Amino acid sequence: METQPLGVAMIGYAFMGQAHSQGWRNARSFFDPAVVPELRVVCGRDAEAAGDLARRFGWQSVETDWRAAIARDDVDIVDICTPGDTHAEIALAALAAGKHVLCEKPLANSVEEAETMTEAAQRARVDGIRSMVGFTYRRVPAIALAQRLVADGRIGEVRHVRAQYLQDWLVDPESPLTWRLQKERAGSGALGDIGAHVIDLTQFITGDRLAGVSGLTETFVKERPLPRSSSGLSATAGSGTGQVTVDDATVFIGRFAGGAIASFEATRFATGRKNAIRLELNGTRGSIAFDFEDMNVLNVYEADADEPGFRRIQVTEPHHPYVAAWWPAGHGLGYEHGFTHQAADFLTAIAAGTDPSPSFADGLGVQRVLEAVETSAASGAAWTPITPPAIG
Amino acid sequence: METQPLGVAMIGYAFMGQAHSQGWRNARSFFDPAVVPELRVVCGRDAEAAGDLARRFGWQSVETDWRAAIARDDVDIVDICTPGDTHAEIALAALAAGKHVLCEKPLANSVEEAETMTEAAQRARVDGIRSMVGFTYRRVPAIALAQRLVADGRIGEVRHVRAQYLQDWLVDPESPLTWRLQKERAGSGALGDIGAHVIDLTQFITGDRLAGVSGLTETFVKERPLPRSSSGLSATAGSGTGQVTVDDATVFIGRFAGGAIASFEATRFATGRKNAIRLELNGTRGSIAFDFEDMNVLNVYEADADEPGFRRIQVTEPHHPYVAAWWPAGHGLGYEHGFTHQAADFLTAIAAGTDPSPSFADGLGVQRVLEAVETSAASGAAWTPITPPAIG
Amino acid sequence: METQPLGVAMIGYAFMGQAHSQGWRNARSFFDPAVVPELRVVCGRDAEAAGDLARRFGWQSVETDWRAAIARDDVDIVDICTPGDTHAEIALAALAAGKHVLCEKPLANSVEEAETMTEAAQRARVDGIRSMVGFTYRRVPAIALAQRLVADGRIGEVRHVRAQYLQDWLVDPESPLTWRLQKERAGSGALGDIGAHVIDLTQFITGDRLAGVSGLTETFVKERPLPRSSSGLSATAGSGTGQVTVDDATVFIGRFAGGAIASFEATRFATGRKNAIRLELNGTRGSIAFDFEDMNVLNVYEADADEPGFRRIQVTEPHHPYVAAWWPAGHGLGYEHGFTHQAADFLTAIAAGTDPSPSFADGLGVQRVLEAVETSAASGAAWTPITPPAIG
Amino acid sequence: METQPLGVAMIGYAFMGQAHSQGWRNARSFFDPAVVPELRVVCGRDAEAAGDLARRFGWQSVETDWRAAIARDDVDIVDICTPGDTHAEIALAALAAGKHVLCEKPLANSVEEAETMTEAAQRARVDGIRSMVGFTYRRVPAIALAQRLVADGRIGEVRHVRAQYLQDWLVDPESPLTWRLQKERAGSGALGDIGAHVIDLTQFITGDRLAGVSGLTETFVKERPLPRSSSGLSATAGSGTGQVTVDDATVFIGRFAGGAIASFEATRFATGRKNAIRLELNGTRGSIAFDFEDMNVLNVYEADADEPGFRRIQVTEPHHPYVAAWWPAGHGLGYEHGFTHQAADFLTAIAAGTDPSPSFADGLGVQRVLEAVETSAASGAAWTPITPPAIG
Repeated sequence: METQPLGVAMIGYAFMGQAHSQGWRNARSFFDPAVVPELRVVCGRDAEAAGDLARRFGWQSVETDWRAAIARDDVDIVDICTPGDTHAEIALAALAAGKHVLCEKPLANSVEEAETMTEAAQRARVDGIRSMVGFTYRRVPAIALAQRLVADGRIGEVRHVRAQYLQDWLVDPESPLTWRLQKERAGSGALGDIGAHVIDLTQFITGDRLAGVSGLTETFVKERPLPRSSSGLSATAGSGTGQVTVDDATVFIGRFAGGAIASFEATRFATGRKNAIRLELNGTRGSIAFDFEDMNVLNVYEADADEPGFRRIQVTEPHHPYVAAWWPAGHGLGYEHGFTHQAADFLTAIAAGTDPSPSFADGLGVQRVLEAVETSAASGAAWTPITPPAIG
Repeated sequence: METQPLGVAMIGYAFMGQAHSQGWRNARSFFDPAVVPELRVVCGRDAEAAGDLARRFGWQSVETDWRAAIARDDVDIVDICTPGDTHAEIALAALAAGKHVLCEKPLANSVEEAETMTEAAQRARVDGIRSMVGFTYRRVPAIALAQRLVADGRIGEVRHVRAQYLQDWLVDPESPLTWRLQKERAGSGALGDIGAHVIDLTQFITGDRLAGVSGLTETFVKERPLPRSSSGLSATAGSGTGQVTVDDATVFIGRFAGGAIASFEATRFATGRKNAIRLELNGTRGSIAFDFEDMNVLNVYEADADEPGFRRIQVTEPHHPYVAAWWPAGHGLGYEHGFTHQAADFLTAIAAGTDPSPSFADGLGVQRVLEAVETSAASGAAWTPITPPAIG
Repeated sequence: METQPLGVAMIGYAFMGQAHSQGWRNARSFFDPAVVPELRVVCGRDAEAAGDLARRFGWQSVETDWRAAIARDDVDIVDICTPGDTHAEIALAALAAGKHVLCEKPLANSVEEAETMTEAAQRARVDGIRSMVGFTYRRVPAIALAQRLVADGRIGEVRHVRAQYLQDWLVDPESPLTWRLQKERAGSGALGDIGAHVIDLTQFITGDRLAGVSGLTETFVKERPLPRSSSGLSATAGSGTGQVTVDDATVFIGRFAGGAIASFEATRFATGRKNAIRLELNGTRGSIAFDFEDMNVLNVYEADADEPGFRRIQVTEPHHPYVAAWWPAGHGLGYEHGFTHQAADFLTAIAAGTDPSPSFADGLGVQRVLEAVETSAASGAAWTPITPPAIG
Repeated sequence: METQPLGVAMIGYAFMGQAHSQGWRNARSFFDPAVVPELRVVCGRDAEAAGDLARRFGWQSVETDWRAAIARDDVDIVDICTPGDTHAEIALAALAAGKHVLCEKPLANSVEEAETMTEAAQRARVDGIRSMVGFTYRRVPAIALAQRLVADGRIGEVRHVRAQYLQDWLVDPESPLTWRLQKERAGSGALGDIGAHVIDLTQFITGDRLAGVSGLTETFVKERPLPRSSSGLSATAGSGTGQVTVDDATVFIGRFAGGAIASFEATRFATGRKNAIRLELNGTRGSIAFDFEDMNVLNVYEADADEPGFRRIQVTEPHHPYVAAWWPAGHGLGYEHGFTHQAADFLTAIAAGTDPSPSFADGLGVQRVLEAVETSAASGAAWTPITPPAIG
C-alpha cells in the first residue's frame, strides 16, 4: 500500500528557489522517502520568472500570491525561500492553515518574530504539523560526521571553538546595492546571512549553546551604486547610489555554556575566499577541522592514536551520513546536495511523525546570538549574555 | 517558435544509468538547451530494476529489449550505459536506425570494434546523426579550464605529462568477483576502466596524442569469491571462487607525438585513494596540476609571474566552463555534474548541427593506447608505437 | 683591513640559549657580517649546565653571575635569554655598561618595565649603543616576504587581520607546573608567551598598530603537579601540586588604527596543533596567508590577476629575504634559522651604525597590547583602547 | 675518561662542502656523540675559496692536494664532497690509508667503479675502517619514520611504489652549462643526480630492491651557453656554447623483487617544482606519502582505523627519529639537518664499531639501477633486469 504523495508549495524562485527545487526532486530520486513530494506550485510576484523555474524543474503550477498558494488543498508543505522580512508572516499563515513548514534561514529578522514563530510551531506540533529551519550546511556529510564524532566523545570535552565564514563578493566598491545590504529587508549583513550559519553549526556540532558574546561590526563601503532594476531598494534621494545599512563584516568572541571559549568571524570582504566556512574545535582528547572549500573532507585528530596526526577523512564512504544514496567512494558531492538531504530528512520526519531538526527553536537560538552580537557591537563591544530559550 | 523535444532511450540502469538520468534531467533544468530531452524509455533485462529507476527519475517507460527501445519512433537519442562488450552492437544498431548515440567509455573492448563503430559514426554523420563517447571527466570545470589554459599557451610547450588514476576498492581479497574483473565482459581491468580516463584527459588537455608506450600490468589477487548473484560470471568449476582475468593495476611510460615524455598509472589497489585522478603537466612556461580529490580546484604555475607559485584557482566563478549555470562562486560542484554538462553539450551540438566532442574517433584513439599497453605488457614491457588514426 | 670581532655574553642557557648559540655561530658562517661575533661567555646559575652548553657550542668561558659577565671588557654584546621577570634588570645594567643588548621577548613583564627599558635604550642610542628585542619570527623568510609585499601595496588597504598561535603542550592535566605557568616569573601565560608573537607579527606586517581590544582569557587546568625539581616554583602548601596563575588561552578582537578589524587567539590547548602560527590578512586588492606548520611557504592572492587564486610561493628562492645565504631553491629552512637572521641583522646594524629592528619601543608597543587584553579580560571583555607610544 | 676526538678531512668546499661543514659542527653541538669530530682540514684546488670556507666554519687548515690531506696523521675521517668522477680514486686512497670514509652520492660514475669501491670498503672493514655513502635524505625525520613504520608492517605488503624527484632549474634554455651537465664529470644527469636519491629511498623504505626496469631518458635542451668561467667544461669548438651530454629527465617503471610495481621520474624541467621529492607506497594494509616540499610531515593511511584517512603526522615530536636533539614539538627542521644526522650516525657507528648505513654496497645497488635505466633507455625502453649484488 502506497502512501499519498505530499504537495509542496515553494514561495520564492531565485537562488534558493532553484536549490530547493533540486532538493525536492532529488530527494525523491535518490532517497526514496516514505512519502513522495509532488512539486505542486511555485509562487512569485514575477509570474514570468516563476513560470520559467516551473518549466525547468517541473513545478506543476505558478501562483503570484503566496496566500493563494498556501490556501490550496493540494498543498501539504510550504517551503519559504523569500527574504527574511517575510518569513514570519508566511510561516505563521502556513502553520495556521495546517501546513508543514520549511523556512529558510535566518528564521526571522528579529528575536520577537522568531519567538512568535517558534510558539506557533509548537502549538501546531500538537496537531502533527512539522516545521524546520533551513540550516542546510548541517547536512554536508563531513559536518554531519563531525557532529556524530563529537557527540560520541571522540574529541572529549570541547575547549576551543573557532569559526569563520569568509566570502569576498563585496570587495569591489562598485558592486551594486541589493536587498541583502538593506537592514529593513535582510535584518543584518554578513552577520545574519552567513554568520548565522556558523553560529548554528557550532551549536549543532558541540550540542552546546553560546552563553555570551563580545563583538564588533564594520561597514567598509557605506554607499553603493543602485542596480539598474532597483525596485524595492531605498535610494539616497536624487543620486545613483544608496546607503548600505547592514554590516559588511563582524568579529566576535564568546563563551559556550559548557565552558569552551570561542572566536567567530563573518565577512564578505575576505579577498580570495569565496565560500570558506571554516570550523575548528579543540577538545581534551582531540580536534576536528573543516573548510567548505574542501567540503568532502573532515580532518580529525585523536591524541591517543599511535603516531597521531590530523586524519584527512574523505567523507564519501557508504557508511557516512547521506552518502550511500549517491555515488561510489571518492565521487564527491557538491554544495547543492545539502538541499536534497534537507528535503529527504523533512519528508522522513513527516512520514514518521517525528520532530525534524533544526527546529524553529534552534532558529530562535541563533537569532538570540545575532541580537546579542549587535547589542554588543552597538555598545562598544560590551559583554552581552545570551539567555537560554525558555521555549523550544 | 519552440523546437520539438528529443526522446532519449537509455540502455542500462545501474551506476551509470543513474548518473545519466541525472544528467539528462539537470541539463534541462540548469542549461536550458535549444532542444529539450524527454526521458522516454529506460531499457534493462531486469524489468523490475529498470522500472524502479524509471519511477525515481521520471523515465516514461521501460523496455527489456534494447532493440525494441532503439526501434521506437519517439526515440531520437540512444544513450548506452552497459558494459563494454555490448557497446559495439548497440551503437551500430542505433546509428543504423538513424539515432544520435552517446556511448559510455571505453568505446569498445577492442580496437577492431572501435574502428567499426567510428566508421559507422562517420557514415551516419553525413545524414546529420551525432555520436559522442562518454569521457565525462573532460567536463569537470577545472579540467575544462586546464584544457583552455594549455590551448592558450599559458604553460608553453608541454614537456612532462604525469597521470594517475588511483582507487582502492579491490584491496580486500574477499571483495567479490564482478563483471568488471572478467576480460570477456570488461575488456581489461584498471587499464580500460580508469586508465582510459586519464589517457583521454591527457590527450584532451595537451591536444596531442601518445605515440608510443612501454608498460606493465599486474593482477595482485588472482582469484576472488563469487558474489551471491553471479549470473553471467565465469566461475572456477566446483568452487565458490572465480578467476580474475583482468589487470588490477598498470604502470606505463610513453612519449607524446609532440615530444613530451609521460608517466601513467591506473590501479584499484592504492590503499586510501578513493578516486584520485591526478594530472600534472609541466611546460616551458608553466605547469598545471589537478587532483579529483579536490575537484573544484586547478593549480596553475606561471613562471613569468612576479613571485610565482602554484595558484590554487577555485574553478567556481561564473566565467569558468559550465559554472554559470549553477551556484554562486565558491559553492562547488560534485562528481555527478559532469554528466549534466555532457548531456547539455550533446543536446547543444545536435541543435546546432555541429560535431560533439569527444568523438568516436577520440574513443578509438584511446582504445589504441589501451591495446598498445597490453601488447607491451605481454612482451616484457617492450616499446610499442601507436599508429595515429587514419580515420577520425 | 679587518674590523675587530665583537664579544658576546649570553645570559641563559636553556632552550633559547641553544637557539641563540646556533644563531651567533651561523651568522658568522653563512652571512659573513661586517663585524664578526666571538662567543665569549655564557652565563647561568647552574655552572655545570652552562658549561655543557659552552662545550657543545664553543663558548669560550662560563660565568654564574650575570653582573660579572656584563662587566667584562671583552664583552660588547649582551644577549638576554632568561625568563621575562629578569629582562629589565639585566638590560638596564647592560645598557648602563655601554653594551649592545639583544633581549628575548616579551620585552618585560609589565608596561612600566618596558617603558623604563625603552627610555634607557633611547638614551644609550645617543652613544651608539644598539638594542633589539627578539621577535625572531619576523625573520622567517615567508613572513619577511609578507611584510615586503604588504608594504609594496600588493594587497591594498588591509581590512581584516586574523591571527592565531596554537599549541597543545598543556592539554594533559598531568603535565607539570613550570615557571612559564607562574605569573611572577612569566608575566602571563599563552598571552605573553605566544600571543606576543602574533601581536608583533601583525603590527610588523601591516605597519599599523592595534588601537583597541576586547578579550577573554581562560585557565582550563588550574592546578598542576609540581615537577621533581621545582626550585623557584610557588607550591600549594603541603601538597604535590601548585597553582597555575597565568592564562592557558586567550581570544580577543580588536581594531587597528588604520581601520582593519582583527581577531586573535593564543592557546596551549589546541589539541593537535604544535606550533601553528597562522596569519591571514585581507586587503582591498588581495590577501596573504601563512601557517608556520608550512613555514617555507607564503600564500598570496591578488584579485586583479588573470584567473586569480592563492599562489603557494615557496619562499626558498635566492631573491627572497635571507635565503641567498643558505641552500638552493626548494631546500627549505627550519625554525632555528630565524635566530641566525636575527644575529646577522643585529651585527649588521651595529657595524653600520643604524637602528636594528624590532626596537625596544616595538617591544613596548606589544607590551601595551598585552596589558590591554588583560585589562579587558579582567573587566568582562570591556573595550580597552591602547594609547600609542609617546616614546619610540 | 674522554675519548680522543677524530680529525676530519673534507675534500670539496662548494654546496656540499658547506652542508657537510654544518653537519660535522652541529653533530657535536646537538647530538653529543661518543667521539667528537675535529674539523682539521678542508681540501680544494682553489686555495682561496677553500680558505674562505675554513674561516667561516672553523676548519683548522686548508690543503690543495687531496692526497696530502688524506696522508695526514691527524686525519681519521675522509669526507668526499667532490663531483662523481673523482669519488673512486679518493675513496680507494683513503681506505688504503686506513681512514674512515664518508662519500657523497652517487657512489661512483659507473658500476665498475662502485664495485671496486665496495670491495675495498669490505676489505677495510676487517680492520675496523667504516665507510658510508651520503644518501642524506634517509635522515629526514619523516623519511626515517616512514622506514620504521613500513618495517613494522604498518602498511602491510607493499604493492605500489611511486617516486618522483622534480626540480625546474634547467627550464630556462639560457641557463649555462655546468659540470653537472657533462657526462664525463657527472656520469648522468637528472637520473644520477636526483633519481639516485629516490631509487635509494624507495629501496631503503621498502627494505626491498628493484629487480628490473624499463625506461626513457630525454635531453630537452641539447646545447647551452658556456658560463663565464668554464674551465674544465668541454665546449663546442669556436662557439660560446657547449653540448649537454646527460639526460634532462628520465621516467621509468619497474618491479621490486618482492612483487611491488613501481613508477619513477626524475627531472630538472618540472616548472614550478623546486625540490619535490615525492614518495608514495601503497600496501595491503595502508599507505604512506611524503613530499619534500612539506618535509616535516609524513602522511600515513591505515585501512583498519575507525574512520580512516591519511594522517598528517608532524614529525617533530621528541620520540621521532633525530628530533629529540633539536627543538620543541612543531618547531620544524630544514634541508640541512640531514647532514647533521648523517655525521652523528657515522660518528656513533665509528665509536660503537658497527656498520654505518647506507653502505657502499647500498650505493652500488643504486648504481646498478642507474645503469639498468640507461641500458633500457638506450635500447628502446627494453626491459632490463637488475642482478642483485653478490657482494654487500
